[in-house]
Parts: sequence; C-alpha cells; structure tokens
Amino acid sequence: MLKVGVVGCGMIGQEHIKRLSKKLQGVQVVAVSDVFEEGARKAAGICGAKVYTDGADLVADPDVEAVVVTSPGFAHKETVLQAIAAGKRVFSEKPLATTAADCKEIVEAEMASGKHLVQVGFNRRYDKGYHQLKEVLMSKKYGEPLMAHCTHRNPVVADTYSTEMAVHDTLIHEIDVMHWLIDDEYESAQVIMNKRTKNALPHLADPQFMIFRTKGGMTIDVEVFVNCKFGYDINCEVVCEEGTVKLAAPATPIIKSDASVATGIETSWINRFIESYDTELQDWVNAAAEGIINGPTAWDGYVAAVTADAFVKAQKSGQVEPIVTGEKPEFYR
Amino acid sequence: MLKVGVVGCGMIGQEHIKRLSKKLQGVQVVAVSDVFEEGARKAAGICGAKVYTDGADLVADPDVEAVVVTSPGFAHKETVLQAIAAGKRVFSEKPLATTAADCKEIVEAEMASGKHLVQVGFNRRYDKGYHQLKEVLMSKKYGEPLMAHCTHRNPVVADTYSTEMAVHDTLIHEIDVMHWLIDDEYESAQVIMNKRTKNALPHLADPQFMIFRTKGGMTIDVEVFVNCKFGYDINCEVVCEEGTVKLAAPATPIIKSDASVATGIETSWINRFIESYDTELQDWVNAAAEGIINGPTAWDGYVAAVTADAFVKAQKSGQVEPIVTGEKPEFYR
Amino acid sequence: MLKVGVVGCGMIGQEHIKRLSKKLQGVQVVAVSDVFEEGARKAAGICGAKVYTDGADLVADPDVEAVVVTSPGFAHKETVLQAIAAGKRVFSEKPLATTAADCKEIVEAEMASGKHLVQVGFNRRYDKGYHQLKEVLMSKKYGEPLMAHCTHRNPVVADTYSTEMAVHDTLIHEIDVMHWLIDDEYESAQVIMNKRTKNALPHLADPQFMIFRTKGGMTIDVEVFVNCKFGYDINCEVVCEEGTVKLAAPATPIIKSDASVATGIETSWINRFIESYDTELQDWVNAAAEGIINGPTAWDGYVAAVTADAFVKAQKSGQVEPIVTGEKPEFYR
Amino acid sequence: MLKVGVVGCGMIGQEHIKRLSKKLQGVQVVAVSDVFEEGARKAAGICGAKVYTDGADLVADPDVEAVVVTSPGFAHKETVLQAIAAGKRVFSEKPLATTAADCKEIVEAEMASGKHLVQVGFNRRYDKGYHQLKEVLMSKKYGEPLMAHCTHRNPVVADTYSTEMAVHDTLIHEIDVMHWLIDDEYESAQVIMNKRTKNALPHLADPQFMIFRTKGGMTIDVEVFVNCKFGYDINCEVVCEEGTVKLAAPATPIIKSDASVATGIETSWINRFIESYDTELQDWVNAAAEGIINGPTAWDGYVAAVTADAFVKAQKSGQVEPIVTGEKPEFYR
Repeated sequence: MLKVGVVGCGMIGQEHIKRLSKKLQGVQVVAVSDVFEEGARKAAGICGAKVYTDGADLVADPDVEAVVVTSPGFAHKETVLQAIAAGKRVFSEKPLATTAADCKEIVEAEMASGKHLVQVGFNRRYDKGYHQLKEVLMSKKYGEPLMAHCTHRNPVVADTYSTEMAVHDTLIHEIDVMHWLIDDEYESAQVIMNKRTKNALPHLADPQFMIFRTKGGMTIDVEVFVNCKFGYDINCEVVCEEGTVKLAAPATPIIKSDASVATGIETSWINRFIESYDTELQDWVNAAAEGIINGPTAWDGYVAAVTADAFVKAQKSGQVEPIVTGEKPEFYR
Repeated sequence: MLKVGVVGCGMIGQEHIKRLSKKLQGVQVVAVSDVFEEGARKAAGICGAKVYTDGADLVADPDVEAVVVTSPGFAHKETVLQAIAAGKRVFSEKPLATTAADCKEIVEAEMASGKHLVQVGFNRRYDKGYHQLKEVLMSKKYGEPLMAHCTHRNPVVADTYSTEMAVHDTLIHEIDVMHWLIDDEYESAQVIMNKRTKNALPHLADPQFMIFRTKGGMTIDVEVFVNCKFGYDINCEVVCEEGTVKLAAPATPIIKSDASVATGIETSWINRFIESYDTELQDWVNAAAEGIINGPTAWDGYVAAVTADAFVKAQKSGQVEPIVTGEKPEFYR
Repeated sequence: MLKVGVVGCGMIGQEHIKRLSKKLQGVQVVAVSDVFEEGARKAAGICGAKVYTDGADLVADPDVEAVVVTSPGFAHKETVLQAIAAGKRVFSEKPLATTAADCKEIVEAEMASGKHLVQVGFNRRYDKGYHQLKEVLMSKKYGEPLMAHCTHRNPVVADTYSTEMAVHDTLIHEIDVMHWLIDDEYESAQVIMNKRTKNALPHLADPQFMIFRTKGGMTIDVEVFVNCKFGYDINCEVVCEEGTVKLAAPATPIIKSDASVATGIETSWINRFIESYDTELQDWVNAAAEGIINGPTAWDGYVAAVTADAFVKAQKSGQVEPIVTGEKPEFYR
Repeated sequence: MLKVGVVGCGMIGQEHIKRLSKKLQGVQVVAVSDVFEEGARKAAGICGAKVYTDGADLVADPDVEAVVVTSPGFAHKETVLQAIAAGKRVFSEKPLATTAADCKEIVEAEMASGKHLVQVGFNRRYDKGYHQLKEVLMSKKYGEPLMAHCTHRNPVVADTYSTEMAVHDTLIHEIDVMHWLIDDEYESAQVIMNKRTKNALPHLADPQFMIFRTKGGMTIDVEVFVNCKFGYDINCEVVCEEGTVKLAAPATPIIKSDASVATGIETSWINRFIESYDTELQDWVNAAAEGIINGPTAWDGYVAAVTADAFVKAQKSGQVEPIVTGEKPEFYR
C-alpha cells in the first residue's frame, strides 16, 4: 500500500484524490495540502487524510512515501524539487514547470540525485488506442514510420483561450505523445496560420496547421481546431513504408436512422480520455511501489517545454523554427 | 444496332425507352405499343418510333428484332408467348406472369421452340455490389456458403401496400437474387409474423421475418420491413465456412458533424439500383445481338412465382411450407 | 471493505480471487474453499486467506460476509442454498444450477428468506457495448424494439463440444442478455439445423440458427457458429421502429495494408469480455456492501435454465417449442 | 451524332477511341491520325474511321466536327491551336501543353477566337466521389471550407519515375481538382522532403509532403507517396467550419476473415477512376453537341502548369514559392 500525499486540492486535485481513494488498488492518500485551507479540508474529507497548507510540510511528512502534484502550473517546480531533495517519487501534472529553464533545473536536480523520481502527467501515453498503435509500430510489421497526420479538434473553447494556448494547452498532448509513439526526436516547428472559422472569437487564430520535422526525417502534421463544433475528435494516422496505422476512436453503437449510418464522436476530452487517467496513475502507483518510473520523465517534461516554445515562436514568425533540446542524457535512455 | 419494340408505355416503359434511346449503345427503339394510343404516341416522341395499339402487331412487325415487355403484369404472358412464337428475343419486366401455371406455360413454349429467347427483368443480379459478392463466393476463398442474413427495408410504402405484397413486391427481389448468388435451390419457406411497428397501417403486418431453406441445407433469413422510416436499406451477409462476405452499400461522403461520423443511406430504391437497370438492359442488348440470353431465364421467372406462392401460404399458415418447382430442365442449365 | 469467501478454486476461481484481490476496490478475500485441499492452499496463496475443504464451513465462517461460488456447475446449488440460509449475499457463476427444477428451488428459498441475496454470473450485461445499446434502447429515441439479429461466433471449439452445448455453453449468453436488453420475456424457441461446415467434427451440428419469439411479439435470431475460424465475433443489431442500433465491436487500430483497410476481430472470448468481468464483480461488491443485488437474479438464472431446456428440445424436434417459466414473481420485479 | 477525329493513337488514344465507339452515346469517330501510320490504321480498325498521318489534315477535314487530342504531351499545343483556328471544339488530354507559356498562348488564342472551344482532360472532376463532395461543400451545410487533407498514394512506380514527376504526374490531379472543389485560387506552394521509404529507388524522394495555401487562406496538404505498396489510395477530407467531409472510397464487399474485418483498396488508378473517364468524355460530347464547354478549360490547363512549376521550384528551394497566374479573365468565369 503506497502512502501518497497530494499537493493542490483544486478540481484536478480532487479528481485525483477520488481516483486514488476509490478506484485504484494499492494506494492510500494519507495527506493533502492546499494554500487554501478550506479546499484542503474538503479534499481530505474524501479520503480521511491529514491536512497541510504548505506543500513543503507535506513532502517532509515521513508518512508520505510519494507525492502527487496538482497545484497550479507555476507552483509545480518548487514541490517537485522538494520531493527530489527528499528522495521521494513524485507525479507532477503537466506542465512539469512553466519554462524550459525551470524544467531543465528539475532534470539536473533529478540527475544529481542519481534516482529516477519524477513522472509527468502526460496521459495520452496511457490511452488504450495509442497503446495499440505503439504496439503495431514497434512490431515493424509495416516497416518504418515515415509520416504522421493528426488532428486535435475541440468542439469549443472558453473566451479566454488564446492563440498561444493552441500550443500550450492543446498541441502539448501531441508534443508529448508523438515522439514517444514514433521513437524519434523533434528537429523543427512550423505553424501555418489558416483562414479562421467564423465560430472563433476575433482574437483567436483557429484553426492552425502545425508541422513537426524530426531528426529521423519524419513529418508530423497536426490540425489544431478548437472550435470545430462537431466534437472532440482526436486522430492520428502513422504512415509506414508498407501500410498505415490509424488510432481507433472509442467504440460506440452503430445507429441507422434518418438516412444515415453513424457512430458517435465524443464531445468532451474528459470522456474521451477518462480511462487513461486511471491507467496512468495506477501504473505510477505500481511502479513507485517498485521504486521505478515507467512513464513520461522529467526529460520528457523538458522536451515538451522546449518544443512548445519553438511552436509559439513559429506562430509569430511564420518560419520553420529549430527545436533545440541538446543531447538526451544517458540517464534518461 | 438491335432494333427493339417496346410493349407498354407506362412509367416503367417510358423509363426503358429513354434508357434504350439515350444511354445504351447498339440499340434503337423502332416501335412502341400501348392500348392507350395517346400513351404510345407520347412514348414514340422520345425516340421517333412507329406506334401500335396492339402488342401482337408490334411483335409481328418484321422491323422489330427483339421485344421489351413493360405492360402491366397480367399482360406479360400474352406478349412473351407471341415473341416466342415469332422466334424473337424478349425481355419481360418482372413478373414473367402472374401465376406459376402461366410461367410454366411460357417455360414449356420456350423449350418447345428450342431457342433461348426469354429474359426476366430481375435487376439485382446486375447491381455492382451483388456482382462483387458473387465473385468472392465463386472464388471459394472462404469455403462454401452456409447461411445468409438479409434485410429489405423501405422507408415507407403506399397505403395500398398489403401483407402479401411483402412477398410479391418486396421479397421477390431476394427470391430471385439469392438462389443465383449462392447457386442453390429452395426447399421451403417460413414466415414469422412479428410485433408490428406503429408506423404501419392496421391492415399491414410489418415487419415480417422470412426464412428460406435450400436443398443444399442453407438457411437464408430476410427481414422485410417496409416502413422502417430511416432508409432504403438492403443488406446481405453470406456466412461461409471461413469468413463472411457482406454486400457493400453505395459509397457516400463520410461526414463528421454534430457529435457523429456518418455515411448516407439511400431513401429510394430507384437511386439505389438505377445503375443496375442500365447494366441489365445493355447486357440484354449485347447478348440479344449475339443470339443468346445471359440473364434471368423463364425458368427463373417460374421459380420466383412458385417460391412467392409458398411464402404467401407460409404467411397464412405459420408453418414451414415446401417450395416445389420440380427438377430444373437440362435446357436451363 | 467487504469480506468475501470463494468456494471453488479451479481456473475460474483463481481468476476471480486475483480480480478481487488485485484489481477491485473495497473487497478482501478472507477465505477460500476447495474439495482438493492443495488447490485451495494454492489459491489462498494469492490473497492470504483461510483455507477450507468444505464450502459449508466457509459459508458458516462469521468472518465471511459474502460468498462467491466458482465450483463446478453441479455443486453451485448446495452452496447457494447454504448462503441463503445464512442470510449472506452470494455471487454464483453461471449456471445457477444444472436443472430448471434446482434453479426453482433456489428461487423459492430466496423468496422465503425475504431478502435479495443471489446474483448469477452473466457477465454480458456488464459489457460496455451492451450497456451503450441498453441506454439507447431505453431512451426510446428510435421507438420500440421490434427484432434483433445476433451472431455468436467462435473461431474453434474443443473436440468434446457437443450439439447441445451450442445451447448450454454458447447461446446461454444471448439467453440472458437479450431479455434484459429488450425488457421482454421469451415465449418460444426454434432451432434450424443448417448445412454443416467442413471445419466441425462429425458429431457436431455447426452452425445452427436459433430463433426466440417473445411475449411482446419480437423475433430474435441468433447464428451460433462455433467453428467459424475467423474470430470470436459477437454481433447484436436491434431493429426499432425508426432506426436500428448495433453493438459496437471493441476498438482496434485501422490498418491499411495489402490492398485492404481493416480493423481487428478478437479471437478469444476472454479478451473480448475481460473488462466486463471486472465491472460485474466490482458492481456486485459495491451493491453487496449496500445490502442489495443489482445484477442478474436467481429468477434470471431460472429463466435461463428453462429457456435452454426449450432450445435443446427444439434442436431435437425441429419444432417451435414453448418456453414456460410461469409469471415472474413480484419479488423479482 | 457528334463526328469526332482523334489525334494520337497510342495506348490512351486507343482507349478513348474504344470508349467513344463502344460505350458512349451520340458520338462517332470518323477520323484518326498518328505520325506512325500503322498505329493509325490499327486504331481505325476499332471504329472504321478515315486515317491521317498529319493531325493538321484531320483537323481540317470538314467531316470532323470536334477533335480529341491524345498525342504525346509536347504535341498537344499544335493541334489545339489548329482546332481553335478552325473553330472546332477540342478535348486535349492533360497536360494542355508542356510549359505555362504555351498554355498561356492557347488561352490567348481561345480568347481571341471569342468562343469556348477547349477542354482539358482532368478526369477527377468527373469522379462520382468528388462530385458528391462538391455537392455537400456547395450546400454550405457545414459552413465554409477551411482546410483539406489529401493523400495520393500509388503502390509502386516505374524505375523512370523521378522526383519532379511527383508534381507533374501525380500531384497534378490534386492541383486541378482541389481549386475546383473548394472554389478558391492558389497562392503558394511548399514541399517538405521527408525521410524516404526503403521501397523507392535511390534517385527518388518518396514520400513528399506538399502544401498549398490559397488566396482565401485555406491550407491544403497532400501526402504524395508513390511506393506505398498497399494500394492506390486517394483521400481527401475537407474541414469546414462545422463539420468535415471526406471522399468516399469505392464500395467493396465487407469481408470478415482471419481475425479482421476488411474492405478492399484499389491497386490501380485505372480501376479507381475508370468510370470518370466515361463520364468525362460523354459530358464533353453532350456539351460539344450544344456548342459549349462544361469541363476544365484552357485557363485551368494554364493554372495547372503554373502551379506545377511552383511546386517543382519548391521541391528544390525548400521554401514557400508563390503561385502567380495573374487575374482570371472574365472570359473564363
């Protein structure tokens, strides 16, 4: 039974606390923390945990064997570094930190500690569909992957959603999952600003067409369209030398009615990927219990930050912008 | 250039006259006939043909090399027999005749003539989808056919449509196409009267579940549902020993909208099978020019009549009714 | 934390013990029992439970709050009756008992106890696909259900599989799930013995075509084909008054290769329905903790037995055989 | 009956002669021409036409009402200009001419003649699938088109196929069909040279990723992959403001076998688009008989040439290259 402390009791924190307490095996939430004591008390009510208002105290609590960080993004770095210093495994929701430099600092702290302690909450890798894709690709049954065509479509976004958030909040999922999926590294970023949909607010460029090129020579294109109206529609087709492999959409009944035959498309990311969150945290719990990290590492968090920065630059410049992460350290291979 | 006379200038007659004159190759309509002279004159206007009011005179006209019969069903027999007597090829719209006995009389007249002269207008055999199915089945790639599951769904029928018409007007297509498709002969008929849809008039049993058993031991089931509302939906899945083969629906754009991904279903039989009528008549023209018959024969017309009678009997008795056609004559093999 | 005892430590018993111990929440296996002590000891090793060689002793153990019965079918009745007598909730793998009379005895004992204690292990109701179907049907969005077309196809069966097992081991799943799905009761059973596949052993009639009629007038047909070679292929299309609703197959990658575009079909029932077993037992655990039964009842177990008997009779008689369960008691509504 | 002369009796010439003589209505091939007299004689054998060895003589023949040009590409210009001079309608297989300047010369000659005489053989516009797409897009049911994602995949190409031919022989089809489909004009061309498949010869860049931007702001991406091995796979998904519309693949039987459910992919362009050639020429014949041009014009031929030149430049430069056609003349609107 892994004893976990959760830092940050907002919406996502509460979701994870429920998940850890009610759905997963082999884990117990023994402490929660929030700068707003009331929020922490409410969250503690879910699971009967100790309450802290300072994450540092929670990390220091000897009852806490591992830490889950669900505070606002800007606060992740501090808690993650504390956990590393304490030699405790830590699961940080994405982003690992809000700048590439901060991510780098975490990477260096972890390497200095000599132990694999940090996992970042990129849940797509735990989606069953991506797993099936990965399995086929690794079999090399259809040869080497050459290209990938993706879409990331949301039915609608909040008024506060900005053009940059198309990278930081939306593309970020493809940024993490695609290099894992194809086992390659990014080289450059390009963004084509498209004619806009009438359904976006004037400040927002929507849709955008984003292109990765990899060190191995692959091209990965992603249509990011966050006011597509019709659904939360995630597609990924990997073109290999002798066949193509396409992500399955979740299975729904096939309905014939009104002169058409149709299956459903999810309209909410939460329904589309809900199972992956369970799998992700269960996997982290199981691995943490064995003292290892299986999932996205601090290095992956750093790569995501550097790549996102390049795409934001490319949004503005209209040019192909290099993605420069430096050599992947031996420690993370 | 095959010189054709058309007997019967109603809606279907005019359609065939247009088809023969404007779309098909190697054929010319040189004479038309209708008991209503005005109808015949109007039809002649399409193609510049001679006008008759008596089909017998048209058949006897030495300019007419082959005859197309599109008069009402009760009048088919007389013209077909006249054409046989004249040694001219004849294409009769279905039904060949309105009773099994009359069909038998035509079969015997044709056999007595020693020449293959008669083709019946069962168009499904000329549908591209059924052709693709037949090709796969004949390859024996998936072993012998064992069962077939079919649906014949119409969105709606006229108020005059009766329970018996579910056999004579609807199932009749499966009656002809299925024994051709699986290359087997029918043994018995069963009809299960189902709970009725609220969308049918009180006099009509809809849907009905119809079951053929064949001499070879196959079971073929057909859902006949003529007020299904959602479309004209023809399905046919043949279950073989090592795989199943299913009729393709016509290709339509794949549309993602409103939380679903959908393709279209036809709502009218005319759109669904329009191309098969062109293919059917062109094939008849080409074969007639060579002095042969490739399509459904008088024997097939007779088999359809006997089979339909057994299904109507089965509708009333609730029992498994035998389908007795006698041995297929050598002449028709 | 529900304290459970498991009676029967064969393969399925061990699976359930692992499931209860390693995957599910809120449950603990505190005792196991098997007539073969070694098997019981081995199973106890999975979960650290007490060991019994007599199921009666396990049921009587005051530490055991609820009982899971995974002994051979003939032994279910005894343990279930003991659990009822002890007032403990009991989950019996299917069949509830091996004869309709024995099932009836359990039904009567449960009713006499005045408490809902018994659940039968019909897992299909917990499959996500069937749940989606049920949800659509209950919405009445497409009107009332009228017919259902099903297939139950296995790639291959053991040499010992007999013609009767097509009912008892295969159709039994449709027997339970379909009346739940359409919320109707069975009236009669018919079996059409089809031409056999060359891939079945001589003693086995395969495929068979099975037909239910319901009190509400629905027709449900099931192709049972247990040597279909190509996959474990479960289909269920419910035809409603204004549309049809078809069970989704599990999602797999879409692969283009070798002149075709394809998705996968499972080849093993265990992979196809594995998740439903987890959901089923978790649901039972949660309900048992609240003192209720949500799933298939003893009455459902009895209905299954009576219906299976009618189908076996119909296999032999070739006739439509009545399915007579008597009125559903108020207790089970 | 339109009297047609065909200039060029190679493979494609013979195909068109057969098509015009044996499949289409209202047209007669009265003359054929080829610099190789033997080829012309052989082609004349198909249809009983007069034989010329000089296209100019054929064009001048008063029996010839309209001209079909199927000579090698470099010879198109001369015959097309002769036909314009003679005031005769002319169907030129693509390319209209081998340089943009030559195309421009034809455009100017046609405008000077004051009559619409020239049609270019871009057959995709006559494919049923693209027609369905166009119809949906024109309905504006899903709002304005914003992006399009296309693939042009061939299973294999000849050893002589070069990197530039990916534009001139392959992308050329998307070049013509896409601006017609979305009713917009091209602004720039970009080509991303991808990691190469092991299945291409060393001199050939395969696959390539080609990107159009339009004056209206749309992005159109095309994966050109001519050694994809698995099939001739043409895809086109147009993303609109409230839905996406995707080209249907031709309908084929749905086959369940060997643990998968599959439909077929064509392996040859000829099978994929055969029907569009019939429709294209029949449409030209019908329009020519009425003295009009419905299909791709000389201006479209010129646009194709200019666009192809920009893509070839972009292949070499790696930059976004402008596509400069000048304003579309009133004459062609």
